[in-house]
Amino acid sequence: MMTLPTFQDVKRAAALLKGIAHETPIHTSRQLNEVSQSTVTLKCENFQRVGAFKFRGAYNAVAHRPSGKPIVAVSSGNHAQGVALACQLLGREAHLVMPEPVNPFKRSAVEGYQGRVYSPASRNEGDKFGESLASKLKAEIIPAFNDLHVIAGQGTATLELLKSIEDLDVILGPIGGGGLLSGTCVAAHEMNPKIQVYACEPAGALDALYSVKENRVVPQDNPQTIAEGLRTSVGDLTLAILREHLAGFFVVEEHEIVHAMRFVFERMKLVIEPSSAVAIAPLLRQEAALQGKRVGVIITGGNVDLSNFFDHLRGNSLTSGMEAL
Amino acid sequence: MMTLPTFQDVKRAAALLKGIAHETPIHTSRQLNEVSQSTVTLKCENFQRVGAFKFRGAYNAVAHRPSGKPIVAVSSGNHAQGVALACQLLGREAHLVMPEPVNPFKRSAVEGYQGRVYSPASRNEGDKFGESLASKLKAEIIPAFNDLHVIAGQGTATLELLKSIEDLDVILGPIGGGGLLSGTCVAAHEMNPKIQVYACEPAGALDALYSVKENRVVPQDNPQTIAEGLRTSVGDLTLAILREHLAGFFVVEEHEIVHAMRFVFERMKLVIEPSSAVAIAPLLRQEAALQGKRVGVIITGGNVDLSNFFDHLRGNSLTSGMEAL
Repeated sequence: MMTLPTFQDVKRAAALLKGIAHETPIHTSRQLNEVSQSTVTLKCENFQRVGAFKFRGAYNAVAHRPSGKPIVAVSSGNHAQGVALACQLLGREAHLVMPEPVNPFKRSAVEGYQGRVYSPASRNEGDKFGESLASKLKAEIIPAFNDLHVIAGQGTATLELLKSIEDLDVILGPIGGGGLLSGTCVAAHEMNPKIQVYACEPAGALDALYSVKENRVVPQDNPQTIAEGLRTSVGDLTLAILREHLAGFFVVEEHEIVHAMRFVFERMKLVIEPSSAVAIAPLLRQEAALQGKRVGVIITGGNVDLSNFFDHLRGNSLTSGMEAL
Repeated sequence: MMTLPTFQDVKRAAALLKGIAHETPIHTSRQLNEVSQSTVTLKCENFQRVGAFKFRGAYNAVAHRPSGKPIVAVSSGNHAQGVALACQLLGREAHLVMPEPVNPFKRSAVEGYQGRVYSPASRNEGDKFGESLASKLKAEIIPAFNDLHVIAGQGTATLELLKSIEDLDVILGPIGGGGLLSGTCVAAHEMNPKIQVYACEPAGALDALYSVKENRVVPQDNPQTIAEGLRTSVGDLTLAILREHLAGFFVVEEHEIVHAMRFVFERMKLVIEPSSAVAIAPLLRQEAALQGKRVGVIITGGNVDLSNFFDHLRGNSLTSGMEAL
């Protein structure tokens, strides 16, 4: 029998994270309100430590495994950074399984937090590699989302959001494994049962929608989206919570993700990753269910590869005295 | 005889801007503190209306010309947007002379504020075009920086900064015409005479440094920098203030501007324009005068052309059902 996280778990996580995680700011935009015909508040977890909300759940989960054993996590993305920093802060040994292809920026961030990185050749090998590593090291595994304390930690972002803005009608968040949205649901519905929580999912990675409809974990098969963080399947814990709480799904096309990222960069001056843009897209296309509503959006993170942009900019840089030719 | 702006002018500007300009947030970064070996606070005017501090001075200056006459401004950049929005809010007719090359994004922003745009073929023609237009329309010209009320308006950013963080040792800002830094000096030195204000200037557009050294307006001749906003010469008002108040200059290379922009995008998740990065660069190279100091930096704006980045991203966008081929 599964034990699902409660609001008490979220509040305990918030107490644990106080002074350690950032209380991230909220941002608003007249232009976004005009274009969307609604009143939008962004909860900016791109300003969270490690650049993403994942730090909240990772820290809470590591802190709840007080055995002192080493920690293993499997993730090529933000969860790896979150666990590595959490372990550094809590004095735990961190072993991060980051299957290829690994973004060198993310790898070096993890190493900067003293995490040890292992890179199996493909994602499919990640979990098996992680389990065998944990068994060898007598370590504990911190799952990326399907974990009571990870979910409770992610819920603290919504706790803060609803302390800043009490009167929300709707909360939007992107969905990958469902850890963020599960925590969002648990926190939001205890604080205000009327809030509608919608999951926003790329059309090219539509497993969560089918999982909730069919009430079983539909595997993520060959996801096709630039929103890297959303290429995973849900788990049994997150599925149970999502089925109970979600008001619905918004399905988002790739060109809408790029358009939404661009809108937020250009108009709001915020660097956000594609996953975050997935939750802005329904606003930009003026979804009927959002019209006239007070909408909160969890901006999940800002870890995006900008190499192309800066390479281009370097090329246009006009004095070059210290540049290699 | 010149009348220079006083602290009273800055305070009056702040009262006028209250509820109209944003009180922009401050941002800090552990990583920036570590790299720079100082304690840095960014005043984020990239979150200001029109995406730049220029709105402050423009609004204050338009409000101080209560004749009801039409307004003319000459600028291809943020000042044009600031004046256009100020005029829209104050019910004044706005005529913006935006010499070619005009960024289409900036042009359409100005038109979105109901400003009428004129585009003479080159920058050299801008001022003459503006004067003849103003004479024809019986309009008043709002200078981009060499104006008491523009300078006083820009000073309000520093007023807010020093209300958030009292104990600063140093303030850094980029220098083009000197409007921002003049206002900064007037506000900072009344509030704390010990604060050292440094101007940060691209090596490829070094007129302000020479103007202050030689105590005359050295014309900006063929500036070579990606920091568009810093390609102008100073004026007699700004020169007089800068000479009296500045502690010194930091000269910045182009590759340092790109590196600083990248640092702020990637680590702090803030979209900033190259001009703003000019004031971050001295921190990243650990200038001796900044070591161990509490440093405030005015992030002037976030209006940067990201087309290249998003074109690239669109190219990588994986589902393309609604894309033209």
